[in-house]
Amino acid sequence: MSEPILNDISHRRLNLLRGSWVLVSPHRNKRPWQGLQESPSKTTLPEYDPECYLCPGNKRNLGQQNPKFERTFVFVNDFSAVKEDQEEYHPERKNDGLATRLLRAEAVTGKCYVITFSPSHHLTLADMKPAEIIPIIETWTNLYTMHLNPGSPLMQAANALSIAPLGQDDLTKPNHPYRYMQIFENKGTTMGCSNPHPHGQIWTTTSLPEEPKIELEQLKKYRLENNGSHLLVDYADLESKEKERTVFENESFWAGVPYWAVWPFEIMIVSKQHKRALVDFNDKERASLAEAIVEITRRYDNLFETQFPYSMGLHQAPLNATQEEIEASHFHIHFYPPLLRSATVRKFQVGYEMLAEPQRDITPEQAAERLRGCGGELYRKKL
Amino acid sequence: MSEPILNDISHRRLNLLRGSWVLVSPHRNKRPWQGLQESPSKTTLPEYDPECYLCPGNKRNLGQQNPKFERTFVFVNDFSAVKEDQEEYHPERKNDGLATRLLRAEAVTGKCYVITFSPSHHLTLADMKPAEIIPIIETWTNLYTMHLNPGSPLMQAANALSIAPLGQDDLTKPNHPYRYMQIFENKGTTMGCSNPHPHGQIWTTTSLPEEPKIELEQLKKYRLENNGSHLLVDYADLESKEKERTVFENESFWAGVPYWAVWPFEIMIVSKQHKRALVDFNDKERASLAEAIVEITRRYDNLFETQFPYSMGLHQAPLNATQEEIEASHFHIHFYPPLLRSATVRKFQVGYEMLAEPQRDITPEQAAERLRGCGGELYRKKL
Ligand SMILES: O=P(O)(O)O[C@H]1O[C@H](CO)[C@@H](O)[C@H](O)[C@H]1O
Ligand SMILES: O=P(O)(O)O[C@H]1O[C@H](CO)[C@@H](O)[C@H](O)[C@H]1O
Repeated sequence: MSEPILNDISHRRLNLLRGSWVLVSPHRNKRPWQGLQESPSKTTLPEYDPECYLCPGNKRNLGQQNPKFERTFVFVNDFSAVKEDQEEYHPERKNDGLATRLLRAEAVTGKCYVITFSPSHHLTLADMKPAEIIPIIETWTNLYTMHLNPGSPLMQAANALSIAPLGQDDLTKPNHPYRYMQIFENKGTTMGCSNPHPHGQIWTTTSLPEEPKIELEQLKKYRLENNGSHLLVDYADLESKEKERTVFENESFWAGVPYWAVWPFEIMIVSKQHKRALVDFNDKERASLAEAIVEITRRYDNLFETQFPYSMGLHQAPLNATQEEIEASHFHIHFYPPLLRSATVRKFQVGYEMLAEPQRDITPEQAAERLRGCGGELYRKKL
Repeated sequence: MSEPILNDISHRRLNLLRGSWVLVSPHRNKRPWQGLQESPSKTTLPEYDPECYLCPGNKRNLGQQNPKFERTFVFVNDFSAVKEDQEEYHPERKNDGLATRLLRAEAVTGKCYVITFSPSHHLTLADMKPAEIIPIIETWTNLYTMHLNPGSPLMQAANALSIAPLGQDDLTKPNHPYRYMQIFENKGTTMGCSNPHPHGQIWTTTSLPEEPKIELEQLKKYRLENNGSHLLVDYADLESKEKERTVFENESFWAGVPYWAVWPFEIMIVSKQHKRALVDFNDKERASLAEAIVEITRRYDNLFETQFPYSMGLHQAPLNATQEEIEASHFHIHFYPPLLRSATVRKFQVGYEMLAEPQRDITPEQAAERLRGCGGELYRKKL
């Protein structure tokens, strides 16, 4: 169902995973740009930086010393957005009907971690071999397992895992059960990242955050309305046949620009088989995931021959969830990159987008075609 | 119901206008910032710039010449995101169940305008006197009226308006009825604005965009559940009594940092009486609105002594709507400004925020207190 007319007319597309719309204006890509230009990223970082608080053996902001780690290294964020323990909060329910109805707050506790991707200060995901990314996926999986509610239906899969334990004695099971674990990476200064040493974050909270909550609703709904089939399994299947939005795929994963992408070169990596969470993958599938991650991040860097900024994150089953929620969950990764036309011209999701509706210029099909075309070796290696 | 404990603990607050949550981490404001710094805006613009495509008498991108306008000037955006006329789109409903179910698009037509706020290249809203802002409000009102569906219950109010007509013969009623008009301003290069001549935009579409749709649902629901009372009328009333989030108020408008604000210094201007749309205001109320806009934008600039970037926009009744939708609508203005700690350090809504949930550091109460404290003359005038 290729519809070339959508390359010419303004239209909206429905994001089935969120139940929300995005405005697409393909012709608008032609407008001249006189606004803000990003500075292209410097690509000449040393392998070790004595000033970096993420390099092995270095001191962090609050004085703790990093070990001489060899693969990944995880520590509790020195400036966590949520903490394990804090004063208890009981909303003051005065006899004031209006305030009680209109001003609603609830406490959130949790734990925030930082994970370095490797000891090397200059190795981004795009620079790595799939085999070097597997330890990152294993560390994510170990952390996820460590935070799983002992009663979770996912425990069986977690117990059957054949990956090496984390090997960091300082990391222990949290005191309280948490509801959700958000694993993500902010890459590049444009995305609020303040240290170029490749690293990700993990925020774990007592609440189910907005985005996974919205997606979970949609996933449950689709399953109910379609005899138990899974939205994202069906979607990956369809896209893998349609091909025009596919950027890369292997046996286990489809990776491409979603039909409803908001950001110009947005990508979703979706497991082809129904997988509820990281713990559902075997060795081979983790290797396939590592391959998909490299194929995407390398193409990103190749596209404008720059360190391509993005925020990326994993969505999967909540830590503490009902059987229905867990079975409806489906593992996938979102990449949200802001660049539009070059290493220096980005797309802004601002006025209209904040007040009314997300808007994009080039179509997802055009974006996918460009990304498909820039596989192969990393441009930096060829220089 | 002041709750000082919320200045110390991580918590979530419910945005009743959207039905969504925001994570608040007050202690996190203490973390050091080593990331991207914005360049502080230059404040030395000339009153007239021969190169500016928005100054009176100058040529625009596609060669049209601006008149020598004296107050506001409106023209159809040369690179509109939506257009009045385009090829018709009928989704290809093949016998392919999956594609039909998963890939959903609909055509959008509409009209995009640009509105200059005054002939002066260097006069921002913060620099203007309330009396100079009234013509902008009048122009918005005239455009809104021009696009109202002739059958709209708002026509009666529109016909009773006592404001001068637009005085631009080139602007005429659109060919098609439209569903919504989004009036907004992107200010500053950080907000994707590419021309410093103060101007706003107006995008009018056949679809009801996501944000006003979500708000309208919430407004209808509140009205239904609370004997016909209006969420935002009740809210302005409560805030005006509570005072701790109030930044400015006059007889007709409350302006302050919403309890559920996402951006550090986010502001909402809310009509205290129930007003469905711009056409419901009389002369005095338009003057009060102009005053509120100046009081907010001036404080913004004073806060960090810079041209404070923001996106702002009006929410009001849809152009083409049911009686129920129109009566539930309530006029308000959102200001979404990104700066956090200084003219150069902004808040990023990135990884966690995009993948999981919006997050803020300082509390809305702290933000309101700071903004309340920087009223008075514009800092630039004192230099
Ligand atoms: O139309 P402008 O000012 O050139 O463009 C700006 O505002 C638009 C509406 O919010 C955005 O879509 C653009 O990304 C932004 O650069
Ligand atoms: O924790 P970091 O990397 O210092 O901070 C970055 O990521 C966070 C999570 O997305 C954001 O809240 C911050 O605004 C951003 O600067």
